[in-house]
Amino acid sequence: MEKKKTKTEDKNYDFIIIGAGVAGMAAAMYGARLGLKTLCLGSSHGSELPIGGVITTTNIVENYPGFIRLTGTELSDKIRDHALSYDLVTIKEEKVENVEKKKAFTIKTNKNEYIGQTILFATGTKWKKLDVPGSREFENKGVAYCALCDSILFKGKTVALVGGSDSAAKDALVLAEHVKKVYIIYRGEQIHPEPINMQRIKAAKNIEIINKTNVIEIKGDKFVKSVILDNPYKRNKELHLEGVFVAIGHIPLSDLAKKLGVHLNDKDEIIINHKTSETNVKGIYAAGDVADKPFKQAITGVAEGCTAAYSAFEYLTKNKVQPS
Amino acid sequence: MEKKKTKTEDKNYDFIIIGAGVAGMAAAMYGARLGLKTLCLGSSHGSELPIGGVITTTNIVENYPGFIRLTGTELSDKIRDHALSYDLVTIKEEKVENVEKKKAFTIKTNKNEYIGQTILFATGTKWKKLDVPGSREFENKGVAYCALCDSILFKGKTVALVGGSDSAAKDALVLAEHVKKVYIIYRGEQIHPEPINMQRIKAAKNIEIINKTNVIEIKGDKFVKSVILDNPYKRNKELHLEGVFVAIGHIPLSDLAKKLGVHLNDKDEIIINHKTSETNVKGIYAAGDVADKPFKQAITGVAEGCTAAYSAFEYLTKNKVQPS
Repeated sequence: MEKKKTKTEDKNYDFIIIGAGVAGMAAAMYGARLGLKTLCLGSSHGSELPIGGVITTTNIVENYPGFIRLTGTELSDKIRDHALSYDLVTIKEEKVENVEKKKAFTIKTNKNEYIGQTILFATGTKWKKLDVPGSREFENKGVAYCALCDSILFKGKTVALVGGSDSAAKDALVLAEHVKKVYIIYRGEQIHPEPINMQRIKAAKNIEIINKTNVIEIKGDKFVKSVILDNPYKRNKELHLEGVFVAIGHIPLSDLAKKLGVHLNDKDEIIINHKTSETNVKGIYAAGDVADKPFKQAITGVAEGCTAAYSAFEYLTKNKVQPS
Repeated sequence: MEKKKTKTEDKNYDFIIIGAGVAGMAAAMYGARLGLKTLCLGSSHGSELPIGGVITTTNIVENYPGFIRLTGTELSDKIRDHALSYDLVTIKEEKVENVEKKKAFTIKTNKNEYIGQTILFATGTKWKKLDVPGSREFENKGVAYCALCDSILFKGKTVALVGGSDSAAKDALVLAEHVKKVYIIYRGEQIHPEPINMQRIKAAKNIEIINKTNVIEIKGDKFVKSVILDNPYKRNKELHLEGVFVAIGHIPLSDLAKKLGVHLNDKDEIIINHKTSETNVKGIYAAGDVADKPFKQAITGVAEGCTAAYSAFEYLTKNKVQPS
């Protein structure tokens, strides 16, 4: 597992990580410490996120132990720089399009082909789309999925935030800093953010929560002009606004893993051994939001990535696999 | 789970953490974010470490993702400050002497008594002692367990480092910076540090590895003068030196948990559900070096601690337990 200067150097790796979010890049750092020639590929089939992953869409991170407060991009930059401080790590912004298992794993991207002795799925998730009339039609014309990326476009306007999770609440708080008014519209009994974020929501003067309510249509002309709600006894059926932010959950990017015979749970998350980050297929690991941990945080994904690197190292050592 | 100003405020907590290493203090931070009134007690029965825990005995930490390089104490200080940035967190340097389960958990320290609705064992480990003639007699007279704490006392001298793990190798590297010569004495075939530390050992001019060898006696008068080795065909049976550092492993500090009916594995580690950090006893969690993860790192212990806080929060919410 030493670095050799050969012609095939750029194609052959001990450990290839699909996904360059914080879980994947932390895994790369650990892989290099363990002597593995490691490639981290920055984008997977289905993802539209840059290097750094989903945390780059988070405004303020206050729960990664060791950093009281920093932006999501600052955290991912720190972990990227940490990984790149090792010569054995390469990070490339290429989109993985296919993975095949032969003797080793063949990874095809939009630009190249690589061989990995072991692979880690740190592919994360994509946003679940709101499936109502007008939702696709007005995408990028008032319908948006990334509050942090797009809130500035709605300065001084009225918007809806659809969803009730902690992520949804954090999105509402980001929006509230820029827009005139945010309606949180949630189909369930009661939105359920972390208590600290619930307090912040309550303290924000321009956020109004509408529980037990569905958006059933998005209307407009060139841009969104209103949403139709299915809860007219509490409010006018039509709510006039200029933007609809959607935060109703995520879809795990596990299709490439599934094709390799990796077991998924009923949410399409990759099932891992939480002691080792192993999947059911030898040499394949998973970490971060794509894996089946109920409590998904930057810190837990990062730890799963580091654990995966160690398991890959143990597997290669045990099987005495040498890099090509 | 809101903070109430009552007379019993200092005695009653939603979440009491036994052990103030990085895993425990990260758990405290997460507990507070989740609205739990949290007490982190800095020392457990059997531990001799200060607030910050075992990582404070590590010179350089390069593998906590996000920090390329810092000292163990710097890392534990950052996580302590992060925890203390929340009003709901109290950290006290008290030694826990007993825990009883009544309706809730009663924790007796050397100074006080507390009631916790949920508890987390983040008690870590203590050093395994070398069990040979002279080992106890010369403790603090040449026999030492913390390379970082004590290496300076052996400036310019010759010492042995007994052990073969990654921790042992890192201890040898710390010693090599101060002493004239370090013999790594290991009973197994070959010392087995992380590859990056093996390279550093090989590069150090004043470290010599003696594999397949046991120290069978430590001799001296007021201070250590030599060790007797059981491998005389490779080396003189008696090796003259001034210090013996011992790094042969750790004993999990799990006795208080065991008394509560918590299941341990054959290494006396606390068996946890690695998705949730739960033990077999409701309301009791474990994280960090005392738990049964084979790959024990600061980052994995911290993640286990955060997960435990979330599980405690879920347990309290589900059972609608109110603080006294």
